[in-house]
Amino acid sequence: MAHSYNICLDIGGTKILGAIFNEKREIIYRLKKKTKESGDSTDNVEQVIINVVSEMIKESGIKKSEINAIAAGAPGVIDQADGIVLFSPNLPWRDYDIRTPIEKKFGVPFHIGNDVNVGVLGEYKYGAAKGYKNVVGFFVGTGMGGGLILDGTLFTGNKFKAAEYGHMVLDPEGPLCSCGQRGCLEAFSAKKGMSAYVLQQASRGRKSMLTDNIQNGVFKSKMLKKALAEKDEVAMEAVDRACHYLAVATGNMINTISPDIVVYGGGVMEAVGDIFLEKILKEVDRYCMPSIRTTVELKNAALGDDSILYGALSMIEG
Amino acid sequence: MAHSYNICLDIGGTKILGAIFNEKREIIYRLKKKTKESGDSTDNVEQVIINVVSEMIKESGIKKSEINAIAAGAPGVIDQADGIVLFSPNLPWRDYDIRTPIEKKFGVPFHIGNDVNVGVLGEYKYGAAKGYKNVVGFFVGTGMGGGLILDGTLFTGNKFKAAEYGHMVLDPEGPLCSCGQRGCLEAFSAKKGMSAYVLQQASRGRKSMLTDNIQNGVFKSKMLKKALAEKDEVAMEAVDRACHYLAVATGNMINTISPDIVVYGGGVMEAVGDIFLEKILKEVDRYCMPSIRTTVELKNAALGDDSILYGALSMIEG
Repeated sequence: MAHSYNICLDIGGTKILGAIFNEKREIIYRLKKKTKESGDSTDNVEQVIINVVSEMIKESGIKKSEINAIAAGAPGVIDQADGIVLFSPNLPWRDYDIRTPIEKKFGVPFHIGNDVNVGVLGEYKYGAAKGYKNVVGFFVGTGMGGGLILDGTLFTGNKFKAAEYGHMVLDPEGPLCSCGQRGCLEAFSAKKGMSAYVLQQASRGRKSMLTDNIQNGVFKSKMLKKALAEKDEVAMEAVDRACHYLAVATGNMINTISPDIVVYGGGVMEAVGDIFLEKILKEVDRYCMPSIRTTVELKNAALGDDSILYGALSMIEG
Repeated sequence: MAHSYNICLDIGGTKILGAIFNEKREIIYRLKKKTKESGDSTDNVEQVIINVVSEMIKESGIKKSEINAIAAGAPGVIDQADGIVLFSPNLPWRDYDIRTPIEKKFGVPFHIGNDVNVGVLGEYKYGAAKGYKNVVGFFVGTGMGGGLILDGTLFTGNKFKAAEYGHMVLDPEGPLCSCGQRGCLEAFSAKKGMSAYVLQQASRGRKSMLTDNIQNGVFKSKMLKKALAEKDEVAMEAVDRACHYLAVATGNMINTISPDIVVYGGGVMEAVGDIFLEKILKEVDRYCMPSIRTTVELKNAALGDDSILYGALSMIEG
């Protein structure tokens, strides 16, 4: 019997994850590699995707004729309808029609969407938000991403730029964010913000096991997990602050959307999600209307690091 | 020729506005009266609406047979689909099926929706937001209301409770809001918040022409206009603070929704909207992503105090 496989990618600024799904939505092959190793340069995004997909086909042993479709989540503002990357913060892509060359090369449909939007779609179709209609997603990683499912459909707003509530200002006099604003959620609650807090405390002479692990402005999520397990005081303070502002932002999104569910995903939540969710749940009631709070659930993502891969699959399945 | 008239109501906690529209959407008759004068008690909301509509028919001289439909905007959480008032903050209505008795009494369809939602609908169908697809509305009055048009449809979220971003927390340590939270947009930027600021300054011995005009915790919008015209220092400070936080909230909503337009309506904007909009425009760029800011317009409502009446009409026209 001929197989029908879907190839899904999670393209990040530093690493690419790949998965081949069979007809039962089982992952039969996985790939993980650094973005810069995947092509001569990231300018050549076409080549990056072509190289990765070609490698996955070769290494997995599937036949090219058995591929049904290819899909990817990538950072930035992406026109999902036409497969055009309009803008990407960490990758040098601008108004780039990525669909045409990929479809030409492999002869199958190619879908692409914003990584966090796609991750929330994954949780909506196959994960923690399955069966809900209005979903607010927070993806906590190096930065803070958002994704909205409204009335059962991914909401992308004008020009595919919606759901940037990672840059919701929660304190106009707060710490500077990489986006140029002050006091964004991201500047408090993503790895960037927590790392900045750790470095600030280090400059005041306070020790933390995270300090020496900060590279390019962020520590690794698994190091945060270790620091919390060892009751590292500065790490715990950074997490308390992160969760406080995540609770405020969650309250604001509950008041704004009246969602059925708020889902927390991303690398930080995969590592220490239970700790985060417990702290958020302790505080969130103070920051939203009681009458709206009663009809919303708060949950961690169910698909872990695979949210975006499953979301890519859901774009193929429609 | 037989006429076809639509009767529209804007039911507030203190006053009711009514209008009869002809086929050309012209208002041929208007009514304005205090809510408590409209029935034995507001408990009897059925009677309030029946009395007001009956009076409008009688005074305008139209025939009952010429009425096409009746519609109303009212404060609170309202199930628009079924015509049920689930909860209203200033009126004693709970899970009240208001559609059935009104339709029975007048023999025509009756529609009802949340007042600010309906007001934003009015601006979307016939006012400042006409022709746009994604609309964020702020209605600045005694409190701060919100309304969202997303992908061309009024978005009401789970259980019709969406768009309460008047209670978005912008400073977790800020002034207490009537909702029990601290630092809500409403506590800074609605008449309640501005009035609290004026009273606070009065307690510090600072004079303002608004101080003696505050009744039930709020001054009248036309008094604010007068105070600004006379360069009342405390009034100007209250407005500066209100506009600062409205700019922050606007930035947050731009980042969250990526709307095509943000519309400002309500009594305060009707009175001093030009002053508010100018101040908001000066600050808002600091509180949203530049790439999203480029594709959104900020405008004042075009229908003034009639936004909700026109929105009610739009519910009839569908």
